[in-house]
Amino acid sequence: MEFKQKALEKHAEWRGKIEIKPRVAVTDRDGLTVAYTPGVAEPCLEIQRDPALSYTYTRRWNTVAVVTDGTAVLGLGDIGPEAAMPVMEGKCLLFKEFADIDAFPLCIRSKDTDEIVRTVEMLCGGFGGINLEDISAPRCFEIEKRLKQVCDIPVFHDDQHGTAVVTLAGLKNAMKIVNKKTEDVKAVISGAGAAGVAIAKLLTRAGFGNIVLCNRKGAVCKLDTQPNGVLAEMAGMLNPENLRGGLSDVVSGADNFVGVSAAGLLTPDMVRKMARDPIVFAMANPEPEIMPDTAKAAGARIVATGRSDFPNQINNVLAFPGIFRGALDARVRQITEEMCLAAACALAVLVAENELREEHIIPSPFDRRAVAAVAAAVCGGETGI
Amino acid sequence: MEFKQKALEKHAEWRGKIEIKPRVAVTDRDGLTVAYTPGVAEPCLEIQRDPALSYTYTRRWNTVAVVTDGTAVLGLGDIGPEAAMPVMEGKCLLFKEFADIDAFPLCIRSKDTDEIVRTVEMLCGGFGGINLEDISAPRCFEIEKRLKQVCDIPVFHDDQHGTAVVTLAGLKNAMKIVNKKTEDVKAVISGAGAAGVAIAKLLTRAGFGNIVLCNRKGAVCKLDTQPNGVLAEMAGMLNPENLRGGLSDVVSGADNFVGVSAAGLLTPDMVRKMARDPIVFAMANPEPEIMPDTAKAAGARIVATGRSDFPNQINNVLAFPGIFRGALDARVRQITEEMCLAAACALAVLVAENELREEHIIPSPFDRRAVAAVAAAVCGGETGI
Repeated sequence: MEFKQKALEKHAEWRGKIEIKPRVAVTDRDGLTVAYTPGVAEPCLEIQRDPALSYTYTRRWNTVAVVTDGTAVLGLGDIGPEAAMPVMEGKCLLFKEFADIDAFPLCIRSKDTDEIVRTVEMLCGGFGGINLEDISAPRCFEIEKRLKQVCDIPVFHDDQHGTAVVTLAGLKNAMKIVNKKTEDVKAVISGAGAAGVAIAKLLTRAGFGNIVLCNRKGAVCKLDTQPNGVLAEMAGMLNPENLRGGLSDVVSGADNFVGVSAAGLLTPDMVRKMARDPIVFAMANPEPEIMPDTAKAAGARIVATGRSDFPNQINNVLAFPGIFRGALDARVRQITEEMCLAAACALAVLVAENELREEHIIPSPFDRRAVAAVAAAVCGGETGI
Repeated sequence: MEFKQKALEKHAEWRGKIEIKPRVAVTDRDGLTVAYTPGVAEPCLEIQRDPALSYTYTRRWNTVAVVTDGTAVLGLGDIGPEAAMPVMEGKCLLFKEFADIDAFPLCIRSKDTDEIVRTVEMLCGGFGGINLEDISAPRCFEIEKRLKQVCDIPVFHDDQHGTAVVTLAGLKNAMKIVNKKTEDVKAVISGAGAAGVAIAKLLTRAGFGNIVLCNRKGAVCKLDTQPNGVLAEMAGMLNPENLRGGLSDVVSGADNFVGVSAAGLLTPDMVRKMARDPIVFAMANPEPEIMPDTAKAAGARIVATGRSDFPNQINNVLAFPGIFRGALDARVRQITEEMCLAAACALAVLVAENELREEHIIPSPFDRRAVAAVAAAVCGGETGI
């Protein structure tokens, strides 16, 4: 049976990938009187007295909303809130499976920033955290920023920061192999959407001094007028040599290529123009910017993708479950860039020096140590970088 | 240990009464590729093509939102959205336990009708039904009415219609015992909030010709100006004799007393003034309008309360699980008054004629036949009344 057909049939068979389960029996009168009326009045009154007790008497301490408007789903684009649900259910499944977090999908029928912010704000008293998912750029930046202001719980856009954490972890290990230092390398990021911008910010924070962010119009450069506030901020922060031109121009002499853009954008010729021991992270899904074999043939020393059928899979599942586990356990008010740095470092060191190879720079997505290591890093806040 | 203390400690021990559980294993690469990326793209694309397929490929077909603003929680009043959560989790627990429905609580941080309506409207693409809960009157009427217009899924305010269904079922059976017909009796309803108004409407629909609705200010009468649209509607529809005055005046000669008001409002003297074989439903919680023993001593033939420690418990759990089970299974667009009538009839006949006694007019809340009988009635829509 063809894979696509199998995936569809499996979804029809499952009729939903998550469900609600009771943690308490209400099958007799005694159960009902304690868990429901009249017994339930007591925790209600306690929480009314002190709303923070909602973390003691309800599931809030372990509950995350997975929020989308369906505008940037996988590689599918703006498919709407109902069509986004299979992905959101899948995400919730991963939250539970990897970090024992109760995540519930909220698919919003609006693309309006104000309405999305207001909807989440209205509901945040019932959750311990908000995971934004598959919201298109540049709206996602504004939505995240405003939600961080109005919500009293952590708000995290996984497409940005989850991707950035795992990318940084992989890059750190790759650079150990080729013996390069963050401050010395030139990194070119292809794609200036949610992931590209977040990667650029986190790499900057991690000490990368020469980052060039590139989109369809070419390198983002402070000498040019930028179409929105986020790209203007990027222009001011990145590209110290004020490079202009397309990817093929700016990739010359680069040590690292980080692709979060589209299939086929990196050609063998471009790889050949990179510095010694090129590191190529071609993470466009499902088709990478360059296929690993092609990149290797053109001289790439280390290649990573987003795919499970090649070595070095850069998969967010290595980051977001542990980040939220740590944020919920420590009940942090916000998930900071410092915590993301610490998470990346914790992930990187899970691959011991003596295990580090060109084909093994990042733990497997099923490495169960990841969630605990990342959670501890988020709780502790120590970066080690 | 005192009961209240026990209820509190149990809630602290549970740390939440519901959780999210996976229905699919994603513990290896194959699982992940089918349930998540890239396999998940297929159901997404199908739903984009036809949003109704969200009922096939996601959990929507079985998922209900339990929505509150925390303004009328149990007998506690306006305690806020966080403090309402223990009740909402309890409600979700009952949905799953009694009808295998996946219900999730949404506690809204606003008391503004527009904002509540808009929040639910934004989210309804992810749910198969909306259960409104513990929203104060008269806002609850407007919120329900507007949500029914803007949502493409059934919207049901359980405090209104669930209560009305079980009350009608109990009254029907009680009147069989005393051998009275709906069209002949005079029923007095004490309490003109969500439950009182809905009971008045459903009893009218069921053929009760003489209903007097009474609140703190006395009988609702068309000769007086009413403070809001709903009471004005009630004034036009009820009280054909244009009775005025307080409960003690209008209850004279009444066959049925239906209390959804407050402790102690019905005195023994009032019961003595009722017609022969008084039927007293004293459903205020936790303290009824009159205690069963007191009512009996004053001449009441049949007494029902909302409490589990007396016979004849009028408990919504007999209605809402089956009503939603039926509405979801038949994928009805709205839960109509006709369906509620059919549900009440189906509940009533679960107590067979030869089992019917003064102390047994309604099935036990744990009678597992109720959900199937009510669901079938809602699907079929036959009233039998």
